[in-house]
Amino acid sequence: MKIKIKQKVLLEHLNYAIKGISSKNLIPILNCIKFELTDEGLYLLSTDNEIAIKTFIDKDKIDSIDEVGELVISGKYIYEIIRKLSDEVINIEEVIDSQVLITTQSSSFKLNCIDPKEFPNLELEYVNEPLVLKQNVFKSAISQIIFATSTQESRPVLTGVNFKIVDNLLECTATDSYRLAKRKINLSNSLSNNVDIIVPAKNLNEVIRMLVDDSKDIELHIFVNKVVFKFGSLIIMSRLINGTYPDTNKSIPSSFTLKINTNLNKLYNAIDRASLLTNEEEKNIINLSTSGDIAYITSNIPEIGNVEEKISIKKNNDEEIKIAFSSKFMMEAIKNFDCDEIEISFNGEIKPIIITASNNDELIQLISPIRTF
Amino acid sequence: MKIKIKQKVLLEHLNYAIKGISSKNLIPILNCIKFELTDEGLYLLSTDNEIAIKTFIDKDKIDSIDEVGELVISGKYIYEIIRKLSDEVINIEEVIDSQVLITTQSSSFKLNCIDPKEFPNLELEYVNEPLVLKQNVFKSAISQIIFATSTQESRPVLTGVNFKIVDNLLECTATDSYRLAKRKINLSNSLSNNVDIIVPAKNLNEVIRMLVDDSKDIELHIFVNKVVFKFGSLIIMSRLINGTYPDTNKSIPSSFTLKINTNLNKLYNAIDRASLLTNEEEKNIINLSTSGDIAYITSNIPEIGNVEEKISIKKNNDEEIKIAFSSKFMMEAIKNFDCDEIEISFNGEIKPIIITASNNDELIQLISPIRTF
Repeated sequence: MKIKIKQKVLLEHLNYAIKGISSKNLIPILNCIKFELTDEGLYLLSTDNEIAIKTFIDKDKIDSIDEVGELVISGKYIYEIIRKLSDEVINIEEVIDSQVLITTQSSSFKLNCIDPKEFPNLELEYVNEPLVLKQNVFKSAISQIIFATSTQESRPVLTGVNFKIVDNLLECTATDSYRLAKRKINLSNSLSNNVDIIVPAKNLNEVIRMLVDDSKDIELHIFVNKVVFKFGSLIIMSRLINGTYPDTNKSIPSSFTLKINTNLNKLYNAIDRASLLTNEEEKNIINLSTSGDIAYITSNIPEIGNVEEKISIKKNNDEEIKIAFSSKFMMEAIKNFDCDEIEISFNGEIKPIIITASNNDELIQLISPIRTF
Repeated sequence: MKIKIKQKVLLEHLNYAIKGISSKNLIPILNCIKFELTDEGLYLLSTDNEIAIKTFIDKDKIDSIDEVGELVISGKYIYEIIRKLSDEVINIEEVIDSQVLITTQSSSFKLNCIDPKEFPNLELEYVNEPLVLKQNVFKSAISQIIFATSTQESRPVLTGVNFKIVDNLLECTATDSYRLAKRKINLSNSLSNNVDIIVPAKNLNEVIRMLVDDSKDIELHIFVNKVVFKFGSLIIMSRLINGTYPDTNKSIPSSFTLKINTNLNKLYNAIDRASLLTNEEEKNIINLSTSGDIAYITSNIPEIGNVEEKISIKKNNDEEIKIAFSSKFMMEAIKNFDCDEIEISFNGEIKPIIITASNNDELIQLISPIRTF
């Protein structure tokens, strides 16, 4: 393999490929990036067995392809070296005894390589009928719910996001069993098969971080045991989590004893301040109580002091509520709404709290109250 | 005590006062900020026994002083509360049973206070003849050398910066015994007594972070066991480190077998890249060797690979040098020069390397070479 390529061009794509490498991986080949140089351009591949990333640099962006071939190089070293070289043309050339020479006018690096045959076959296949979404729609949907996934490995299915498609409706759901976040997306056309998969939250986070071109499409190619994301010059494969995702729709009530509407920012800031006088060990409990068109948010740490915040609300009837919940969970839930007013719905002090935008329910956040005595 | 004050004004000064509090302090009173409200304005005081900070808000910036008095409040809580309140007028009022009420239109915090008598007397005195420097001169001098102080408590004097004044010359020195950084400042007038003190690096870092008004003066009031810094609305007291600072001037040779001059940025970037193939456990050793008007910088990690960087140099004679040193130490030393060209002086491969700007020696950096076999 022999190539001349501008530092900026190579670095842009190494920035993607490096995301497929886990710094904690003990298997040397999984710390490497594979360079595949063809007459069409340069592919960079990386995988840590959880996620696989393939990015493509078209021949038009390459200064010269002198000899096609394959190379497998330590990801960390090649990334840092290219990152620290100045913006000029870099020569990369395979030399004898599995070594690669990386040179510019003043720098000359010689790195040991690994036999490309040892690199895993990534099987980045496509289905005929992918799920196609605008990148900004996919990104905002995932961002609005992914925080509610569990980080506990004791129930693996809860560490992922559930994608469920029935007819024209895609539901993305995340829950850690104390709270739940669900985002609905109406698809312009239905897939021939229904979908019900669980994608690891960690990998979804990597995917949404790499989305840059909001107006363009992202394709999800869904298989039994993996999903392949395709967008721009990138192909990312994630394994799926085995198991059955809980039927979350039955946890979300459809009728409520009380609904209140209020300004999102004012509520967020009031809870943020009240949370100063809560303890993390005690789940950051705060109290909310209504009295007419005012809601009071209170909390205290006996040895420090107490706080009372007031906000204006609109109620749908004369009921009042007095309920306690985690300020952290409430703040994480409400900050993901992209609207001015939100609606919070109650069925008494021991039933789940449901939060939606005041004018639509495409995003539903659920929080379990905390019983206090 | 009773005051009305804008959130922005109070927060600006709490930002200073909070720096006097160590989060690790187990003595409750040392986690507190003292509010002293007089007819002239509001003083905020904090100390962790290593550093003490006093800041002043003039009455002109206060909305109303309703009742003078003193209050001692948990620093962490009052800081976070004021930070999270919106930019409006805040009422702060002492109420019965050592409690303070902090209120705005929608928020009401009640915090427990500590008896002001328990707060240490800070003794922020002045001398008649302080050392006076421009803030930008002081800040750049300290920034250029402070990284060379030791973090090891085994030799306490090396954890501070030595300020030495003889006649009209101030020398600020830092060393961890492997490297040394010295900055000379010519004073416009001499003090009547010579000065030789050691100021803890940690406290100096806090002081230079609070300097914002480069063109104004900073006063150093030097006592036997403390130094009081005075600038803007701030007074900061630091304890001094007891002990005798080593006589560092005899470590700095005045004649050299070889001097080379080179471009600072090119040298820095070459060492930065070469350092990629060094090990921290092995002190990040890199090699520098000259051959005519070229210097080669090389390093290697046998299992990964090797690197050779070339840079142009100008020499003062026909001698050549081959020497090894820590890339980390060299990068930290040279990045603090504010010039394009630097001069590196040698006395063979086992004697200290001296670095200065090419055109003046107000800043001297010394690095011990590392013997390799």
